[in-house]
Amino acid sequence: MNKGLKKVAIGGLAGLILSAGSFAYAAQGVSKTPAPAKAPSKNLIVLIGDGMGPAQISATRYYEQYKKGVKHLNLDPYYVGQATTYADRGEDGGTVVSGVVTDSASAGTAFATGHKTYNAGISVSNADVSKPFASVIEAAESSGKATGLVTTARITHATPAVYASHVRSRDNESAIASQYLDSGVDVLFGGGKQFFVTKDEKGKRTDKNILPDFKAKGYTVVENTSALKALPASTTKALGLFGSSHVAYTPDRTAEIPSLAAMTSSALKILSKDKNGFVMMIEGGRIDHAGHANDFPTLVQETLDFDAAFKTAIEFAKKDGNTSVVVTADHETGGLSLSRDNIYELNIDLWDKQKHSSESIASKLAEAKTPEEIRSIVAENTGFNDLTDEEVQAILAGDGSSYKQEGAYNAVISKRLLVGWSGHGHSAVDVGVWAYGPIAGKVKGQVDNTQIARASAAIVGVNLDKRTAELQSKYIYPKFKINRDNEVLYPVAALIKALGGSYSSGSAVSKAAFGKNTLNINMSALTATLNGKAVSFTVDNDNGTVYLPLSAFSQLTGKNLKWDSLSERIVLR
Amino acid sequence: MNKGLKKVAIGGLAGLILSAGSFAYAAQGVSKTPAPAKAPSKNLIVLIGDGMGPAQISATRYYEQYKKGVKHLNLDPYYVGQATTYADRGEDGGTVVSGVVTDSASAGTAFATGHKTYNAGISVSNADVSKPFASVIEAAESSGKATGLVTTARITHATPAVYASHVRSRDNESAIASQYLDSGVDVLFGGGKQFFVTKDEKGKRTDKNILPDFKAKGYTVVENTSALKALPASTTKALGLFGSSHVAYTPDRTAEIPSLAAMTSSALKILSKDKNGFVMMIEGGRIDHAGHANDFPTLVQETLDFDAAFKTAIEFAKKDGNTSVVVTADHETGGLSLSRDNIYELNIDLWDKQKHSSESIASKLAEAKTPEEIRSIVAENTGFNDLTDEEVQAILAGDGSSYKQEGAYNAVISKRLLVGWSGHGHSAVDVGVWAYGPIAGKVKGQVDNTQIARASAAIVGVNLDKRTAELQSKYIYPKFKINRDNEVLYPVAALIKALGGSYSSGSAVSKAAFGKNTLNINMSALTATLNGKAVSFTVDNDNGTVYLPLSAFSQLTGKNLKWDSLSERIVLR
Repeated sequence: MNKGLKKVAIGGLAGLILSAGSFAYAAQGVSKTPAPAKAPSKNLIVLIGDGMGPAQISATRYYEQYKKGVKHLNLDPYYVGQATTYADRGEDGGTVVSGVVTDSASAGTAFATGHKTYNAGISVSNADVSKPFASVIEAAESSGKATGLVTTARITHATPAVYASHVRSRDNESAIASQYLDSGVDVLFGGGKQFFVTKDEKGKRTDKNILPDFKAKGYTVVENTSALKALPASTTKALGLFGSSHVAYTPDRTAEIPSLAAMTSSALKILSKDKNGFVMMIEGGRIDHAGHANDFPTLVQETLDFDAAFKTAIEFAKKDGNTSVVVTADHETGGLSLSRDNIYELNIDLWDKQKHSSESIASKLAEAKTPEEIRSIVAENTGFNDLTDEEVQAILAGDGSSYKQEGAYNAVISKRLLVGWSGHGHSAVDVGVWAYGPIAGKVKGQVDNTQIARASAAIVGVNLDKRTAELQSKYIYPKFKINRDNEVLYPVAALIKALGGSYSSGSAVSKAAFGKNTLNINMSALTATLNGKAVSFTVDNDNGTVYLPLSAFSQLTGKNLKWDSLSERIVLR
Repeated sequence: MNKGLKKVAIGGLAGLILSAGSFAYAAQGVSKTPAPAKAPSKNLIVLIGDGMGPAQISATRYYEQYKKGVKHLNLDPYYVGQATTYADRGEDGGTVVSGVVTDSASAGTAFATGHKTYNAGISVSNADVSKPFASVIEAAESSGKATGLVTTARITHATPAVYASHVRSRDNESAIASQYLDSGVDVLFGGGKQFFVTKDEKGKRTDKNILPDFKAKGYTVVENTSALKALPASTTKALGLFGSSHVAYTPDRTAEIPSLAAMTSSALKILSKDKNGFVMMIEGGRIDHAGHANDFPTLVQETLDFDAAFKTAIEFAKKDGNTSVVVTADHETGGLSLSRDNIYELNIDLWDKQKHSSESIASKLAEAKTPEEIRSIVAENTGFNDLTDEEVQAILAGDGSSYKQEGAYNAVISKRLLVGWSGHGHSAVDVGVWAYGPIAGKVKGQVDNTQIARASAAIVGVNLDKRTAELQSKYIYPKFKINRDNEVLYPVAALIKALGGSYSSGSAVSKAAFGKNTLNINMSALTATLNGKAVSFTVDNDNGTVYLPLSAFSQLTGKNLKWDSLSERIVLR
């Protein structure tokens, strides 16, 4: 928990009107003393298998059964239902990015905050001027609980991001890293060091290295298994960055790269010390990446890595006796099917022949010039030393997608393993829901993924609507453009309405009004007057949509609006 | 119920030893008076969506939501879990037909009888000499309940067949029809008239028209919607045959071809009159067929036809107050995925453009010789009048599978609808389970499909093991061969062991023994002696497996064994 943030948040709530949806908690009003003991569970662990659709689960279970004689996945006894995953139709940066088929950002926003949004949106609404939605982690922070995010993807990737940051585009990972600094989240374990350091340090930030800021706020920063294990028992805040980008795939890991279970175990040790309880999210982030690449053997290993982390979580929960656990996926990835070519068999005996991820051998495949080189690389990595000429030529040619030779290699291997794919993207099939503890009754049966968020908040007695209202009083996220003079401009109609004003468009003159102030815009001259007096700021007409700089909105509304250029949001107060 | 059969069955049980698995009912012993009132439910309705995998359900729900504004399928509120579907590895007629990926016969045997078997096996075990397994319908018949089978497939197709017949190969549909005659099942509604009549009547039987036999047993035979609706209230037995093969696909039906809901409604009227209660199975049989063909628009309509039948069933159950309902699928078909080509959208607005099934336009496509003809057929049936040259050429060429032009047409349409397939076969993904009433608690969570059978029997208080023992005392199903002299021969080692004897093979002499009798087989001369005396029957050595005619086994065992050539089984008594 972030004590500083908590004080501000509670103080700032006094003048807010709670939305109609908050009735369940309205009676609690503003309370400085959290009462987790009254909630059904003190602690909550949410686990997300990114890209873990129904076929991914069935496949991994069959692998365990046929290869190891294990009857069930650790997850299996906790299956309670399935969830729809659809996204709102919407755009990102002017490009339509979503329809029914969700991405991790939209799905994550749904199960973290209870609201649907467009693909790429990180816990903001689907509108020209987006508003932030609070997650269960943010609400838990406000209530004084410890919180944590653990993933095998970059810690700044969409699924962890939706729990503790708000941006219009998931690609803005530097902003997500910076927002974590103010989030109060106590444990952050994953990959993605590149978004914490500058280009000079092999990072992607253009501003500065923010690791010192984390250290200044009390975080111990660790970067390998040894350091993770050596965290002292007194640790209350830790940032673990176990890769520049994502944490290495399971089959590619060295001993100094922790498993998801190892990260989970360390996080639980830290978080479970908080007397107010904790809420954490654990993501198997690379099931999705293996699915995108159509790398089936690695997908199975990543799902097992996730299932092992679930085992760690469920064992904690059972021992603790006051912890709910809920598991789901954000979506399916790859359109995986467990059969192909009309053969009623799966070649499970071949599913462990590939020794490393296809990602790890992609560079070798891309450099190979001759059939002999392809044969040699494939034989070395899989033991398949009988590639046909057709298979070799297919790998040399690439699959026509951005995965090129790696995609073609995976197509060859998948055909031999008898599994199929419909592409390199996500699909819209419902995903499983598993649960333990009091939350199970709230997420069983056929649900929408937004129900996971509502159940999460209810089960630990935290208030999503209250925290959302606080956030929305501080930030909004407008679409914007930057002109040739490097001025940031905002769509006047959408933004003035979002700020509480009005707008009427005309062919000659358009009017924006706020309180007693009126801004008249001459649509042909592209000039403006405020309460009759000429003003000097830029007026931009982009195919009928008028854009103005922030100073125009500050003058019109009398508010001291500030532009946070890193997070691409307007700070309202 | 079949009163004649019931008497024989109960009388025949006296000397049987119940298997270890039957402990739950052993205390009941042999009872002539069924006590359904003591069971959790008096009635049971099992609904099977053939080929209805997770993606089929998600797709149909999205169609309803986007096209009709309907929030949920009728099924949705009753989702309780998912089931594994794997088959035993095995062969049919010498060809390996199954691994993990099941067919309807193997899956049906599992959820009807509680036992796994090989693909193609209709409620018989996976062995060289198969034994029959009783279904919940057969056990319910024995207990005095009314029973029914309703499907849009041929009534002799695998899913209904597993509930009331036993054959080594699902293809033996004439035998399945004949076994129904003795099954006691009161209502049989579906397609498949061809297996009840001879070739002279456009049928496939080589023996005789068996419709008169059904009529003689009290069945009213109906063949269209008018006749179905006109069934008098006093009807207790009815055979409805609404097609020579399968019942027409939903979009191809005329008013005189009933929907699955209409058949369900009529069946419920008949069965619900039985004071002892009833058990029925309702199959959406053509979801699977549309999946095999990759005909996505028809698949959605067939799933809706099934969902409407479920509505009829659940409304009955709720009103009745003493009925359990359980729904599952046998397997997924087609490897359907809800997205393709990395596009995060489903073109749901196009999902109803196709007006008839692809099956119905397949003959036109197959006859088309020119691009213009293809364009015309597609435009006429779908409204798509902008086929590219590439699409037209693909349809003309066929897809290389047995679906030829129809398969290629469906590939073109599926790409436009943004759905994918991995082939024309089944896949191994787990399938959904939905339930209402007391059975819900017994099938929730992650289960195997055999649990459906166990739960079905327990919930209406009928005994699968007892009925299985009765069946196994009457019939066994050996592999067999027919030699050039039209003699039916059986593998001596497997069959004598199944009959309770023993076998030892030698290079010079092999011995089969039963009680005090010994049959010595001279392996080089291919002659035999019984207790030292020469016998005259055929001895066949087929690559080391010795085959003998049934008379040899009758002499060796002293049993009066009879060969039922239609059902390809040995009648033991």
